[in-house]
Amino acid sequence: MHVLVIGAAGMVGRKLVEKLAAQPEVLGFEVSRLTLADAVSPTAPAALPGIAEAVTVDLSKAGAARTLVASRPDVIFHLAAIVSGEAEQEFEKGYAVNLDGSRELFEAIRIEGAREPYFPKVIFASSIAVFGQPFPEKIGDEFFTTPLTSYGTQKAITELLLADYSRKGFFDGIGLRLPTICIRPGRPNKAASGFFSNIMREPLAGQEAVLPVDDSVRHWFASPRAAVGFFVHAARMDAAGIGPRRTVTLPGLSATVGEQIEALRRVAGEKAVRLIRREPDEAIARIVEGWPRNFDARRALEFGFQAETSFDDIIRIHIEDELEGRNP
Amino acid sequence: MHVLVIGAAGMVGRKLVEKLAAQPEVLGFEVSRLTLADAVSPTAPAALPGIAEAVTVDLSKAGAARTLVASRPDVIFHLAAIVSGEAEQEFEKGYAVNLDGSRELFEAIRIEGAREPYFPKVIFASSIAVFGQPFPEKIGDEFFTTPLTSYGTQKAITELLLADYSRKGFFDGIGLRLPTICIRPGRPNKAASGFFSNIMREPLAGQEAVLPVDDSVRHWFASPRAAVGFFVHAARMDAAGIGPRRTVTLPGLSATVGEQIEALRRVAGEKAVRLIRREPDEAIARIVEGWPRNFDARRALEFGFQAETSFDDIIRIHIEDELEGRNP
Repeated sequence: MHVLVIGAAGMVGRKLVEKLAAQPEVLGFEVSRLTLADAVSPTAPAALPGIAEAVTVDLSKAGAARTLVASRPDVIFHLAAIVSGEAEQEFEKGYAVNLDGSRELFEAIRIEGAREPYFPKVIFASSIAVFGQPFPEKIGDEFFTTPLTSYGTQKAITELLLADYSRKGFFDGIGLRLPTICIRPGRPNKAASGFFSNIMREPLAGQEAVLPVDDSVRHWFASPRAAVGFFVHAARMDAAGIGPRRTVTLPGLSATVGEQIEALRRVAGEKAVRLIRREPDEAIARIVEGWPRNFDARRALEFGFQAETSFDDIIRIHIEDELEGRNP
Repeated sequence: MHVLVIGAAGMVGRKLVEKLAAQPEVLGFEVSRLTLADAVSPTAPAALPGIAEAVTVDLSKAGAARTLVASRPDVIFHLAAIVSGEAEQEFEKGYAVNLDGSRELFEAIRIEGAREPYFPKVIFASSIAVFGQPFPEKIGDEFFTTPLTSYGTQKAITELLLADYSRKGFFDGIGLRLPTICIRPGRPNKAASGFFSNIMREPLAGQEAVLPVDDSVRHWFASPRAAVGFFVHAARMDAAGIGPRRTVTLPGLSATVGEQIEALRRVAGEKAVRLIRREPDEAIARIVEGWPRNFDARRALEFGFQAETSFDDIIRIHIEDELEGRNP
């Protein structure tokens, strides 16, 4: 089977590729070819010589999707996106990449299939940004999407297109509404959500981290490892049972900042916790106030998607996957 | 104020224009100019000499939206659409008109506003086709949109764009999810929903009509007069209170076919009812089975939108507006 990963240079895309390189059997079918695409040059894994290739391509450019689809990949992971903050600031660019890029991909598949029968599986990375407040404390599977960002709007629209193209039989689509991925590896970033990872990752590396919000702030998390697991599971699962509602809110862990910190204390001790510096930031607090806190992700659980059930596990996974098992 | 009606040659568009020609004061502001646009030549009302003009324009054609917006209308009624059946059969055409046409309009407004400040009110005709089963017997304001047609998908996507463009301050948008309009004037048509009107309109004109489904079938209705009222009310209302959730499910009347027939008996007598011929059609019954039956349209009622509360009224309105008061 030929697997295409679009957005292969992003954090989750890279980890998905690493997993496929290390354990291609995890997909339940033989990977005969692996194409990695991204607007930023992706790196083909050395573990798959002769099978993996990397292409640098901007999905929003004319003809780009057609080129990717011309080789008729059997499974397409579509993770390419302009992130939330950038899509909000650069209105045209956000729509060009997140909406038009996705639509070009779907259209390219439809047109390829009109030429010669073709029915790939398409796994689309959506986001809980499709929800906007006010919403219930625990958002159910049938709650409506009222995004409060252009990014969330673009994701919600792509979910609708994914469902319609699947319903029409152009491809077999599954949309995955990812929780906030935590603990993100790498350096602290300025994203409003960055602190959820920073206050765990930096202390685990012996560094100070800034906490800009109150301990009572609650949010919805899954580890990078769980994120990779969601995509692998979606590729393996029989999508027949999913019906016309092609996008699922994935399971995650609802935790407060206080609960994160308690987990850090249990796993890494008081000296790690002491590295968290409280520096309230009203602007960040206001942004975070509008984010979902908890979900009742019943459908995804029924389909067999799994996430962590304790923040201790999320921290341990970070230590295993990013710190080579070194617990400070 | 300059008022633009796009889709002015459609059934609701025509009635809206007739109303504005007869009682322009109903909008609560002076209409200094009225532009009627449609892909099919609209007819400018004779009642507004020097004010009304008709333009034949296909919104999906390059530059069409820019041309319409160049004259900077203050209020834009956007009712242009390919109907459900055609959008389902002609995939590309449906997306070109219903999605791209709407987006071109929104983009044209955004670009015009970037040139020189411009903030029109945009009233968009959406549809209960954004909902797809399974759904509750009575669909609430926060139920999610899972369309089962390309038409419904295109309407749901346009609702999302309307909300995002409004949120960004490009225009003041309101989306109206119309009930099935009944009693449609004109000749019987082949639309799956046609019989809801046919079994009322034809007997009222002394003609036979075919009923293809069971008396227990329940659906969601408003009269053409109520539909015009929805658009007028949306133009008058202060949209500030509507918040980021820009589309409302409009009020309507939930009635069974049996209740329709009882109303016909009360208003027009047994001889009208006898003109309804029962001819079960499994194909139509199956299509109708998937349609919404009832809504809890609380938000729209709070905003002051009003529909009929009895089918007797819907029939009387048809007699007044279409039959010059002649009750057979």
